[in-house]
Amino acid sequence: MQFNPVTQRVIERLKQIVGEEHVLTSSEDLARYALDEIEERYRSLPEVVVKPRTPEEIAAIMRLANEERIPVTPRAAGTGLSGGAVPVYGGIVLSLERMNEILEIDVDNMMVTVEPGVVLGDMMRAVETKGLFYPVDVSSLESCHVGGNVAENAGGARAMKYGLTGQWVYGLEVVTPTGEIVRLGGKRIKDVTGYNLVQLLVGSEGTLGIITKITFRLTTKPKYVLDLLIPFDSLEVAVAQVLDLIRQEIHLAAIEFMDSISVRAVERYLNTRLPYSECEAHLLIQIDGMEEGAVWEAGERVYHRLMKGGAKEVFVADNRFTREKVWRARREIAQALKAFYKHVSIEDIVVPRAQIVKAVQYIRELSDRHRIETPVYGHIGDGNLHPTPVCNERDEQTWDRDLEAFLIEMFRIVHNLGGSLTAEHGVGLKRIKYLPLVMSKTEIALMQAIKKAWDPNGILNPGKVIPLELNV
Amino acid sequence: MQFNPVTQRVIERLKQIVGEEHVLTSSEDLARYALDEIEERYRSLPEVVVKPRTPEEIAAIMRLANEERIPVTPRAAGTGLSGGAVPVYGGIVLSLERMNEILEIDVDNMMVTVEPGVVLGDMMRAVETKGLFYPVDVSSLESCHVGGNVAENAGGARAMKYGLTGQWVYGLEVVTPTGEIVRLGGKRIKDVTGYNLVQLLVGSEGTLGIITKITFRLTTKPKYVLDLLIPFDSLEVAVAQVLDLIRQEIHLAAIEFMDSISVRAVERYLNTRLPYSECEAHLLIQIDGMEEGAVWEAGERVYHRLMKGGAKEVFVADNRFTREKVWRARREIAQALKAFYKHVSIEDIVVPRAQIVKAVQYIRELSDRHRIETPVYGHIGDGNLHPTPVCNERDEQTWDRDLEAFLIEMFRIVHNLGGSLTAEHGVGLKRIKYLPLVMSKTEIALMQAIKKAWDPNGILNPGKVIPLELNV
Repeated sequence: MQFNPVTQRVIERLKQIVGEEHVLTSSEDLARYALDEIEERYRSLPEVVVKPRTPEEIAAIMRLANEERIPVTPRAAGTGLSGGAVPVYGGIVLSLERMNEILEIDVDNMMVTVEPGVVLGDMMRAVETKGLFYPVDVSSLESCHVGGNVAENAGGARAMKYGLTGQWVYGLEVVTPTGEIVRLGGKRIKDVTGYNLVQLLVGSEGTLGIITKITFRLTTKPKYVLDLLIPFDSLEVAVAQVLDLIRQEIHLAAIEFMDSISVRAVERYLNTRLPYSECEAHLLIQIDGMEEGAVWEAGERVYHRLMKGGAKEVFVADNRFTREKVWRARREIAQALKAFYKHVSIEDIVVPRAQIVKAVQYIRELSDRHRIETPVYGHIGDGNLHPTPVCNERDEQTWDRDLEAFLIEMFRIVHNLGGSLTAEHGVGLKRIKYLPLVMSKTEIALMQAIKKAWDPNGILNPGKVIPLELNV
Repeated sequence: MQFNPVTQRVIERLKQIVGEEHVLTSSEDLARYALDEIEERYRSLPEVVVKPRTPEEIAAIMRLANEERIPVTPRAAGTGLSGGAVPVYGGIVLSLERMNEILEIDVDNMMVTVEPGVVLGDMMRAVETKGLFYPVDVSSLESCHVGGNVAENAGGARAMKYGLTGQWVYGLEVVTPTGEIVRLGGKRIKDVTGYNLVQLLVGSEGTLGIITKITFRLTTKPKYVLDLLIPFDSLEVAVAQVLDLIRQEIHLAAIEFMDSISVRAVERYLNTRLPYSECEAHLLIQIDGMEEGAVWEAGERVYHRLMKGGAKEVFVADNRFTREKVWRARREIAQALKAFYKHVSIEDIVVPRAQIVKAVQYIRELSDRHRIETPVYGHIGDGNLHPTPVCNERDEQTWDRDLEAFLIEMFRIVHNLGGSLTAEHGVGLKRIKYLPLVMSKTEIALMQAIKKAWDPNGILNPGKVIPLELNV
């Protein structure tokens, strides 16, 4: 794929479209849009940053970029972990930060319509003031934008009960790669009119269209929430307990897992202590529901089953202080590892739930054999683990080589277990070369056919999700 | 689009692929595959019927059909209501009836893997024997095939709580229009690897691929179910009560609606009586849950709210006999109307829930103005109504003309209310010409681009969902 450079003439035309003050070209400005939360080494500078305010402006930018064969990388808050917002081919970064209004909270239809640049936490609070609830609890909720959540189909801790972001997306306004504005879906909770383009756009990581409006379905907020922290001496025992629980307890909203390396790192990072932190594994279980009695009863059943099943203790976090303490520990693991290690690669594998024990055992075996320390934590209620290879000793080059060998082996194992290489972070830039390890040539070709049909010049977020080359 | 006829040579090659006894050419046989549950006037004969047993055989058939430019219409049980299985261009009907095995019930992962020709009710009972539950309660469950459910994204009464079929589909094996076998998704309940091709195939009505294996996610069966039948004197009051209920009662699994014409027809058809059948409107509400107390408490709250909100009475169907009686009445409305009227067109509109009252009022006004009697019933918890224009007096030609005028006006109104023309039955053959009334040219063009990219010869189920012509 050949792209053209952004010329002065293109910059002038961009200024005409969005206004001079919304086109950035200084090297400091460009540097701020060169990376998201992916590792530093993926940094890549854009040639220009534009900040449109309307879908019409975005459509005009896309038409210009097609004429000029200039790549366009859409960007929400830049909190993604797979490099989806990194402009690998330079060109235009199209930042949606100015499109940040909550447009409508429709109480009767239990729907909210927002622009893509709204901060997730702001939207969650806004709908709660109307007695409604948006349940997808992404770790970065105070900084991430909902447009990015939709583009990446973000997950989070409560996905085992409430699904990924996509499950709540019912309507989209999208600018197509060729610069047309299209409205898909709407406030219809049941609709089979034509192909499901809404869910095709969800999780397409900005490669099939630029999202300019989102209508989310909402639900009723559970009135009662109970969090349990449960240390186990054995990682295998802890993980094995999860399967049975899920079949029995429909109230479970989350089952999180932290191994001992993760727990110790986060204790040091937050300067705090978790009970029994010397234990090999911790589960963090959330139970929610509309009836207090039912939630407590479920809590008691979980208590008895896990105490019989090898738990060291079951701690109930039934007040806001202890709840925030344990959840903060879980949420800050990635930050803690980044603080203590020079090299950190946050992975995002998923396996069928019943294969979790095997997956964890394989990862430990790999970790020993490759001599790469690999803390493991994640949302095991979903079969989603974040093994995170870390290292301080190796130099850049050795690390790259050793990490690559480790990852290839891990993804092959995961694939053999019926799993895949990303559950919620996205393929992005980071995993594109590993895609053929878990996906057939035919499936990749079907994806490429859609991409090519919708974006004939291949200018929208090239280098992400699927290889540009049409032969795999 | 130009297709070639099925020659004797093609029939010989089909016999080589699937075996002589699985290729049907007699006129009686062909007649049995000329229609599904759509109206009789859409009947169209295939030139040959083939019954493959494996994905490899289907792949070979698709390669042959591409070489010869012969249309292929896949068919499950033929219980669809929109003509998805009608071979409008003749050619090959590809029946999946022999692929009817339940391949695996995976208790640990709470997943079932089946072939497309399994009867839905058989699958539901098979998983229940293992303590699992498939919740999509399609009216034709004792005859429809799960492959058809997936291809059409079938809905049913409990969709307001449990969603459409697609929400439970996690893995597919598909033969592409060009004859390649591809496996999509799997037993991973959280996965964002690449585009969501699984949900693109779901509801594509057999135009993008032939489904040869399905992995459904399962859930835990609710232990307690309560059904309430609630007559109202006023249709508007009944419908208006629904909105408030939904925001408050998370246990509600279904809110069905029947107007007085529907109730009277079904009483006569089943030779039974429903209480207060002279009332203008009936609601049928299902509450389910894991705790008996919680279900009964919800039932009491519904009782008090609806009695205060204008209900004539709230009847509790708390035993199997009364439950089956009221649900059977609801399910048999379409059959009753077909029995009593010469012309019957079962429609399937959807509007945002808060627009239901307006939609019903508009339909009555339309019904008066066009002098077409139009019973209305449906799943109003989802905003999904089945207005069913019926007539005995008009001749075929007059009916066609009058119905068309009625439908065009109805779909325009529905579109203006934020709705669409099919919630669960599919576009199929029946609604293809009305698609541009509710869908933009850009959206249709995006759908066509996918169809064209995947099926360059346009041979797979032509004449369904989207117009063959690429300019709309």
